[in-house]
Amino acid sequence: MEKTLKELADHVGGKVVGNENLLIKGVMTIDDAIEGYITFISNKRYVNKLEATNASAVIVSPSIQSSQKPLLVIDNPYLAFAKIVDFMMYKKPVYSGTIDPTAEIGKNVQLGDGVTIYKNVTIRDNAVIKDNVVLSPGVYIGEDSVIGSFAVLHPNAVVYNGTIIGERVIIHSNAVIGSSGFGYAPDEGKYYNIPQVGIVIIEDDVVIEPCTTISRAALGETRVRRGAKVGSNVVIAHNCDVGENTLIVSQSGLAGSATVGRNVIIGGQVGIAGHLTIGDNCQIGGCSGVANSLPANGKYLGTPAIPINKMRKCYAVINHLPEMRQTVKDLKKRIEELEEKLNDK
Amino acid sequence: MEKTLKELADHVGGKVVGNENLLIKGVMTIDDAIEGYITFISNKRYVNKLEATNASAVIVSPSIQSSQKPLLVIDNPYLAFAKIVDFMMYKKPVYSGTIDPTAEIGKNVQLGDGVTIYKNVTIRDNAVIKDNVVLSPGVYIGEDSVIGSFAVLHPNAVVYNGTIIGERVIIHSNAVIGSSGFGYAPDEGKYYNIPQVGIVIIEDDVVIEPCTTISRAALGETRVRRGAKVGSNVVIAHNCDVGENTLIVSQSGLAGSATVGRNVIIGGQVGIAGHLTIGDNCQIGGCSGVANSLPANGKYLGTPAIPINKMRKCYAVINHLPEMRQTVKDLKKRIEELEEKLNDK
Amino acid sequence: MEKTLKELADHVGGKVVGNENLLIKGVMTIDDAIEGYITFISNKRYVNKLEATNASAVIVSPSIQSSQKPLLVIDNPYLAFAKIVDFMMYKKPVYSGTIDPTAEIGKNVQLGDGVTIYKNVTIRDNAVIKDNVVLSPGVYIGEDSVIGSFAVLHPNAVVYNGTIIGERVIIHSNAVIGSSGFGYAPDEGKYYNIPQVGIVIIEDDVVIEPCTTISRAALGETRVRRGAKVGSNVVIAHNCDVGENTLIVSQSGLAGSATVGRNVIIGGQVGIAGHLTIGDNCQIGGCSGVANSLPANGKYLGTPAIPINKMRKCYAVINHLPEMRQTVKDLKKRIEELEEKLNDK
Repeated sequence: MEKTLKELADHVGGKVVGNENLLIKGVMTIDDAIEGYITFISNKRYVNKLEATNASAVIVSPSIQSSQKPLLVIDNPYLAFAKIVDFMMYKKPVYSGTIDPTAEIGKNVQLGDGVTIYKNVTIRDNAVIKDNVVLSPGVYIGEDSVIGSFAVLHPNAVVYNGTIIGERVIIHSNAVIGSSGFGYAPDEGKYYNIPQVGIVIIEDDVVIEPCTTISRAALGETRVRRGAKVGSNVVIAHNCDVGENTLIVSQSGLAGSATVGRNVIIGGQVGIAGHLTIGDNCQIGGCSGVANSLPANGKYLGTPAIPINKMRKCYAVINHLPEMRQTVKDLKKRIEELEEKLNDK
Repeated sequence: MEKTLKELADHVGGKVVGNENLLIKGVMTIDDAIEGYITFISNKRYVNKLEATNASAVIVSPSIQSSQKPLLVIDNPYLAFAKIVDFMMYKKPVYSGTIDPTAEIGKNVQLGDGVTIYKNVTIRDNAVIKDNVVLSPGVYIGEDSVIGSFAVLHPNAVVYNGTIIGERVIIHSNAVIGSSGFGYAPDEGKYYNIPQVGIVIIEDDVVIEPCTTISRAALGETRVRRGAKVGSNVVIAHNCDVGENTLIVSQSGLAGSATVGRNVIIGGQVGIAGHLTIGDNCQIGGCSGVANSLPANGKYLGTPAIPINKMRKCYAVINHLPEMRQTVKDLKKRIEELEEKLNDK
Repeated sequence: MEKTLKELADHVGGKVVGNENLLIKGVMTIDDAIEGYITFISNKRYVNKLEATNASAVIVSPSIQSSQKPLLVIDNPYLAFAKIVDFMMYKKPVYSGTIDPTAEIGKNVQLGDGVTIYKNVTIRDNAVIKDNVVLSPGVYIGEDSVIGSFAVLHPNAVVYNGTIIGERVIIHSNAVIGSSGFGYAPDEGKYYNIPQVGIVIIEDDVVIEPCTTISRAALGETRVRRGAKVGSNVVIAHNCDVGENTLIVSQSGLAGSATVGRNVIIGGQVGIAGHLTIGDNCQIGGCSGVANSLPANGKYLGTPAIPINKMRKCYAVINHLPEMRQTVKDLKKRIEELEEKLNDK
């Protein structure tokens, strides 16, 4: 369904510079866009692509005021892009709102209004499934767990017993929430499995991507707070606490009892050691290994992670270490020669 | 069910210092504990919290002999904590001991006494499921596989054909055991898939956490030995051999044909290259990349991993590399000046 | 079924040096082999094992012309080994070619000839399942997806809606293809979930190992090209493009919009940052973190990754940094002494 540029601007709260009545078919990236589509520039690096793109219109920030192309000007072009994709292109899934007869529903399970339960779902005793929850095929909900309203669990996701999942949470396929984590007490060369009697709490509006595992607490709780987004194949160990609106990119791992503040961004493949505290608003570059707690509002990088500006300088030197080593050897020789000369005198 | 401090001490083989009849409701961590609960100090770093905790009693090692609080004194407080959690707080799961009619059970499958097979389990031909095994919903057991007594497989775990699983093994959700690993023979710019005709053997008392993958051998076997504990999202490639009572923390990876000794501890996100040997009792710090075989009984860290004490010193220098580079530059200049002066004379 | 050495040579196109009629029972590794078996030497490092192995015959390259043992001489011994394992030892799975009545098949689904659909499979509306596809128990195929001929999906693999899978593709258990990736637009301290309206295309002859996740594109497509092999627990983010016959070893991760050329080899646990381009035929060593685009035909290592020869030299220096620091300190002192002496004169 085509929309005019004006309709799109109104939808996102921006203003049009140029032909308001231009018909837009959809959104494409700046490189791929063809005639009839709108694209966006959310990063100053790409401003030079503004005139070259084949898109018929471009969403830009107020720093760009004119172009040969019609513009949709708005403070946050990336957010506007997201909202326009949602508005024009996203085919919202339709759920049946029914319960498949093959689903196994345990004793004393509470089912809210409008829940959709597909084939081969298992819900164990005493679980609470709130209104409009969607449980896809193969999903497992353990005993005593609570799934908040409008939560969507994708195929084969597993929620162990006693887990609490908030409203509008999205759990992607094969993610595992609430399994017993790494708790083993050494016992004369063997290990005693420490029963993990705590739980996991996932607050409202969290997204958990596929194959991510979040372990239950040994005692107490593991908690992922409101609005946090957790990438694929991430591991969050027992007793961690992840702050509100924090992003954890794919394949990162938090060891036991790590505490991460709010609005933190953790890049991909980052490792955070146990019992550390990461302050609010920190940003940790990809592939970093965090060995010490990090103060709030900083940007960090490396293994062990240090302030990013410092680490970048270190990386620059590391690449020249062989030359530096040679320089030091040369200097040593020259000093020896100088020493000899002076002694000769 | 409350217990007296004396009952707890008797259960774990420790002794009480203080009021033996104190009633204990459960175990909590030293920071969270409230009145009526017992906590533990397993690390000397936390001794200073002994008097400050709100717990009513504390499990301590014999190095602490008195306190204003009642104490449970024992050689291994962490193990005692684990046993008391087990004794007081762990609600052992009750399994039905029945076979759900929706389970698919192939030809010539042997089922032991007391097995529990939940909905939507698939057991292929000729598999052997020994006494008291628990197969949770969505579990798949391939042809010719053997599952040892009292093993528990959590929802959606997958065991490929020909795999041998020992007694009391725990396999968590979405773990995959016995899939064909990375075996591709270059063939004029393409790859020929090498059929992986070996198997996986998981010995008794092993625990495998969620989303971990253990590949079958190309030829012969991949083996995880008795009592080893394997964290979440770990990869163990074809033909690896993991020693008894070895711990592999989450997200670590062993490339093909790596051999890891017994009682080794591999931290999180460690990578071990193919065909290496890691000696008994080694400890490898998190985020390390192991590029060479490591002698027994050592502690190692870094990429490439070297003895931990040396690596820590290297890390300390790395952080000062930019200054060091400047120093070298300065020295060079001063030497040039000295050389000039000497030549002038 | 035993074969003569001549039969094996004929099967792979090699020639026999020695007794052509020798009966061979199967293939074993050079260390494990026993009488009656054939082994192979594909790496010059192992030539010294030729006479010591207990194997009755050895597959070798033309650089070895004689031995006390019968030889099967061929240009690519590793490929010959793979083909002989396939010929003699691989028990090809037999699929039923039937559709289990418990499978849920949506509206307007097209099913080809000879498809095998096991228990508890879900196929959503409008999906196309081409000839001879095998869908194992617990597999989920989303709406509008297409699965190419002879593709095999192992238990509990999940394919989200709109995904296109090529011919002869193998997807191992618990892999997840086409889920919504990490797309979140900052919105006043919170995040707006960007609907991911693109798709994933997996071309012919690709293998995807267990617990690997490949995200759909935000707009457009994520593509894994013909013949690529993707290890376990790998993450391929939205809008990535993986070239033909490229290998990605386990636990590696490609951030959004990364482009990887053809015939690239990416070692285990490698991280590649977003929007980078990796040229054709590159090789990237395990545990590397790639922070910049890499020119074609190079070998790279380290974090950040640089040419491997240079990185190896850097690693060599890193291990000696503490001594080097001491040397620099010593030199500084000696220079100060020299300067003093010269000033005294």
